[in-house]
Amino acid sequence: MLHSKLIHPKSIVIVGGSDNIYSPGGRVLKNLLDHDFKGQLFVVNPKQKSVQGVTSYNDINDVPEVDLAIIAISAKYVLETVKVLTQHKNTKGFIIFSAGFSEKDENGEKLEKEIVELIDDAGGSLLGPNNIGLINKHYTGVFTTPIPEMDEKGVDFISGSGATAVFIIEAAQSMGLTFSGIYTVGNSAQIGVEEVLEYLDQSFEEGLSSKVKLLYIESIKNPLKFLKHTTSLISKGCKIAAIKAGSSEEGNRAASSHTGAIANSDVFVDTLFKKAGIIRCYGRNELITVAGILLQKESQGKNIAIITHAGGPAVMLTDVLSKNGLKIPHLESKESEVLLSQLFDGSSVSNPIDFLATGNAQQLAAIIDFCENKCPEIDAMAVIFGSPGLSGVDDVYEVLDKNIRTSQKPIYAILPSVVNVKNEIQEFVKKGNIAFNDEVLFGNALAKVYNHAPGSEKIKDPVLKNYQKIRKLIDVLPNGYMPTESAVKLLEYTGVRFATPFYIKNKAELNKASESVAYPVVLKVEGPLHKSDVGGVILNISNEKALHNSFQKLMQIEGATSVMIQPMVRGTELFIGAKKETNYPHVILCGLGGIFVEVLKDLSASMTPVSEAEAVRMITQLKAYPILKGVRGQSGINIQLFAQAIISISNLLIMVPEIAELDLNPLMAAEDELTAVDVRIRLEK
Amino acid sequence: MLHSKLIHPKSIVIVGGSDNIYSPGGRVLKNLLDHDFKGQLFVVNPKQKSVQGVTSYNDINDVPEVDLAIIAISAKYVLETVKVLTQHKNTKGFIIFSAGFSEKDENGEKLEKEIVELIDDAGGSLLGPNNIGLINKHYTGVFTTPIPEMDEKGVDFISGSGATAVFIIEAAQSMGLTFSGIYTVGNSAQIGVEEVLEYLDQSFEEGLSSKVKLLYIESIKNPLKFLKHTTSLISKGCKIAAIKAGSSEEGNRAASSHTGAIANSDVFVDTLFKKAGIIRCYGRNELITVAGILLQKESQGKNIAIITHAGGPAVMLTDVLSKNGLKIPHLESKESEVLLSQLFDGSSVSNPIDFLATGNAQQLAAIIDFCENKCPEIDAMAVIFGSPGLSGVDDVYEVLDKNIRTSQKPIYAILPSVVNVKNEIQEFVKKGNIAFNDEVLFGNALAKVYNHAPGSEKIKDPVLKNYQKIRKLIDVLPNGYMPTESAVKLLEYTGVRFATPFYIKNKAELNKASESVAYPVVLKVEGPLHKSDVGGVILNISNEKALHNSFQKLMQIEGATSVMIQPMVRGTELFIGAKKETNYPHVILCGLGGIFVEVLKDLSASMTPVSEAEAVRMITQLKAYPILKGVRGQSGINIQLFAQAIISISNLLIMVPEIAELDLNPLMAAEDELTAVDVRIRLEK
Repeated sequence: MLHSKLIHPKSIVIVGGSDNIYSPGGRVLKNLLDHDFKGQLFVVNPKQKSVQGVTSYNDINDVPEVDLAIIAISAKYVLETVKVLTQHKNTKGFIIFSAGFSEKDENGEKLEKEIVELIDDAGGSLLGPNNIGLINKHYTGVFTTPIPEMDEKGVDFISGSGATAVFIIEAAQSMGLTFSGIYTVGNSAQIGVEEVLEYLDQSFEEGLSSKVKLLYIESIKNPLKFLKHTTSLISKGCKIAAIKAGSSEEGNRAASSHTGAIANSDVFVDTLFKKAGIIRCYGRNELITVAGILLQKESQGKNIAIITHAGGPAVMLTDVLSKNGLKIPHLESKESEVLLSQLFDGSSVSNPIDFLATGNAQQLAAIIDFCENKCPEIDAMAVIFGSPGLSGVDDVYEVLDKNIRTSQKPIYAILPSVVNVKNEIQEFVKKGNIAFNDEVLFGNALAKVYNHAPGSEKIKDPVLKNYQKIRKLIDVLPNGYMPTESAVKLLEYTGVRFATPFYIKNKAELNKASESVAYPVVLKVEGPLHKSDVGGVILNISNEKALHNSFQKLMQIEGATSVMIQPMVRGTELFIGAKKETNYPHVILCGLGGIFVEVLKDLSASMTPVSEAEAVRMITQLKAYPILKGVRGQSGINIQLFAQAIISISNLLIMVPEIAELDLNPLMAAEDELTAVDVRIRLEK
Repeated sequence: MLHSKLIHPKSIVIVGGSDNIYSPGGRVLKNLLDHDFKGQLFVVNPKQKSVQGVTSYNDINDVPEVDLAIIAISAKYVLETVKVLTQHKNTKGFIIFSAGFSEKDENGEKLEKEIVELIDDAGGSLLGPNNIGLINKHYTGVFTTPIPEMDEKGVDFISGSGATAVFIIEAAQSMGLTFSGIYTVGNSAQIGVEEVLEYLDQSFEEGLSSKVKLLYIESIKNPLKFLKHTTSLISKGCKIAAIKAGSSEEGNRAASSHTGAIANSDVFVDTLFKKAGIIRCYGRNELITVAGILLQKESQGKNIAIITHAGGPAVMLTDVLSKNGLKIPHLESKESEVLLSQLFDGSSVSNPIDFLATGNAQQLAAIIDFCENKCPEIDAMAVIFGSPGLSGVDDVYEVLDKNIRTSQKPIYAILPSVVNVKNEIQEFVKKGNIAFNDEVLFGNALAKVYNHAPGSEKIKDPVLKNYQKIRKLIDVLPNGYMPTESAVKLLEYTGVRFATPFYIKNKAELNKASESVAYPVVLKVEGPLHKSDVGGVILNISNEKALHNSFQKLMQIEGATSVMIQPMVRGTELFIGAKKETNYPHVILCGLGGIFVEVLKDLSASMTPVSEAEAVRMITQLKAYPILKGVRGQSGINIQLFAQAIISISNLLIMVPEIAELDLNPLMAAEDELTAVDVRIRLEK
């Protein structure tokens, strides 16, 4: 939990404060003074008694007790400073701008650890090192500009990169995005993104706290903590949009060289975000556009009215929205005839509502009133209004401003004339509005917001059958691939049916086996890895003679060690897989087997624990889902059984976190049963 | 062809010119005066003798001979004005701003036609009506602002929407995009996008003309003309990027209500653009970002060095580039060690090259020199450099500017600090550079440019076998679906093998047939549309008894009229389809048959005429292509035969443009033959 003195200090010391406002220590002081910090301010500067008019001490030991220290001195002096502050000055909040710690080398890492230990022991909170600081309603503790417009209903923004935070603040300015708090975590030595989320979660107050959270993340060290607090915030009505950079292999390399981030492969991030209900973004402009939408009223549905005085942008917006599943319903009614009569000749009210280049404020008011009050089929409005430079648009933007406030339905303002009516847009934004400028960027963001799934429903702790038996089986096994017999046993305990195999190495064993075998059976060569490729699988053997012939044939394959006999199971090939990575819960994958996995990569992924609804969603989201339902006269499979198998595997993974990889490939789906015919499980304890 | 007096008038009359610079007629005059039009200017204004200091005539009949008329008066007076100008004033160029023509109603359409006739008869050229005008190096014939920076090496921009043109000019300004010419076509009464392309093509001069063309299009009336001139321009070394709006069904509705555009379904546009080699864009910012890339040196490969002083944006850029197939090669050499020694501690030179927040101009120069001269594996550089607000960046941007000019490899400048170093960015741009501001928008655009395929190679006119026979067969057939017998005949002439069927309606016919049948055969019920769904297909009938039983069974199906007997053809199911729409050439589709078409929609499309290379590309681009090559121990199909079938169908479509739809579904691919077992062809003459 973040210490209250970090959040709301009554006194701040700038260690390394100076008159040079182009240095971090000088600029943070200027920012605090310019933005009217209400508490006491001190500076530590070895050479001056006064810095920018603030009392300066030459020695840290001379400073009075102080809530928060902002440290902007060379890395090598930081430890000593922190020691004095924690042990003698009752300081609980620390922001360390200085670089040269864990992001640099091993020595830096050691130093950073020692600093954290001191602060931990004192029960304090540390933001940084190597960050740009923190801004909230109490103080502007950053050394960068610009200081954005702060507003309790603005967004809370947590950034793993200081520069990215600055660039986002800059880009947000012209669109009117305001902030409630900005937290940059730098090296996350003590407080990382997860800890700030924990703070925002635990300090959340309905009606007071901002409901929109933005994240820029390069690494998630503690996915479970991250999940816990994002889920909790979302359950309190918050919306979270996030960039997780370093999602490509090469991006990971870039992220690693940047902040020593752990490489997280992308599907883990994706399923984690889905589990929580986070809107995933991929760039700064996308993130702030999504934020701009989230700050406005929530739309009750997917039906958008596009209101425009310029055809082109309306067509492009219509394209992007309808390609992404939103609707631009055709409007035709007596009321729309009345509206049409109020517009200039040549206007169209069928949606997009085009009131022509000559359209005016009064007409816009009539159109908005029409959409708000006379079109129950409309959920939200997007108004596109720029200017070719001939006439002012103040009156139009006033109508927009007024209606955005009073309307029940959200109204999004797309104001593309960033040159011709620049001042009018600034005025509009100053009144607390959001101005989007590119209709396609806006449209993609709107679709992203509308289409994003809520997080997983809360599920009861799963019933874990045979827990003791399973642990007993696993605990004695070494790392690596489980022997097939053990894996089959494990599936049995888990409740997944398996086509029990047995193995024969020679004629004698074959003769013995052939007496008890229930035909038809399958023979598979053991030894070669890719059995199909070497002709090592013979299906549908229905008598003793064929059994003998097939055995001989398979044993002649290069590398053959034995032959596996398995009952012949018919049905549709399915696939269930699972993987674990670092501290994340397992990811489970499902799909149709065979070419659908290997060639078409048609797979759905989810993070454990998987609920029944989630399992069904995984299946229905497959491109090949119609095949599972049944197409072209072929009957489908039993979806419930498939979902149940996914849940059983999910439960298994919770019981056996040591499972690093699991493959059921294929599972055969017959009318009313599902039987795995191949299993591979790798343990990593 | 556009008349030279429209392009380069020595004299212009503004009909409807006024002192009110907030009216179109007033503003266009002001624009001409402000931007120093070199020729003679006149005004026609019924009430004044002088307008903005320019001689004004009260009556059009009093005006001297004049090259170009810009008309900004009420629609109803335009015809008379044009009559005087064409018949008595030797005027050849016309720009008509006025609205109220074909975009409004039938009367307007009639009036527009009469105007075009007058101008056609006089051998003149008309841009508009209902447009914002034209800007080129000779004059600024628009009534809008801003007037963009003009530069012969800037982009030529043709827009089907005036407002979109204005918004693009506005957005282009801050990034430094310059223009060579801007043409807005309005209602395209005489000159449409195709005609401007024709002009740009025919007037193209190597070394003088701009090589980057941008298009915003809502309708393509003459796809063949469009294709001819875009292909020709691209063959001369030009790059073309285009938005075709109205690509969704709902967007089409929006486009139609806007300019009376013909609805073109999206796949026709897509294949047309691919045929020509046009880079397709979907939004204004994307279009100008692509244009900014095209205006710089061309990269010789896909290997990018990312140079940054801020980690976050570099990680995001790495992500977006590598996700889209570009490479950020890891750099490690003795030379890179030398470079590292020139940078501050903690920098990274492995690519992204991160020279830290404190990185300076001198270091940037060293890094660029390293990438330019010591990294043969690097083809292009992307430099990300903003500012947290502490220090100036003039020197850094000077290094960038200098190196962009002198470097052999393209250097892209991503300057995200749109607030902190706004002035420095403006300076940078004033020197003729392009400044991108969002790394992800830039990265997507760069990937789009690099990944876009060149247009189709020129192919010789196809050899059309059996042309006479085919025409004879088609000419006597009515509209609608061809009888199967004719369709089979047509395929035979085309060189596509078909599993010849025959039909039996009763026992007698069956008895007769069963004597000559070569088993195994397939029986299909005739009558019901979806045969598989009603169990109407029985495969692999191998003897007389089964034949009789199956016949009886099928004839009992509701709606059964007869039964088709066909040789049983084994193999992999393939699909070839074709479709025609309005004035476009045919689109051909190919894919695997069955679920691959119906469920997975895994299809490739191309426009006729399809070359061999194109046909092969269509096949290899299928997601299911590995299946056609052979997977999991299954042998593949003969790709050449499949490609040959596509070409044969392409040739057929050229001979029979009346084919509105064609389906070969399925074609069965066996080892060395391809046999169609079902065909549907619909004619629309």
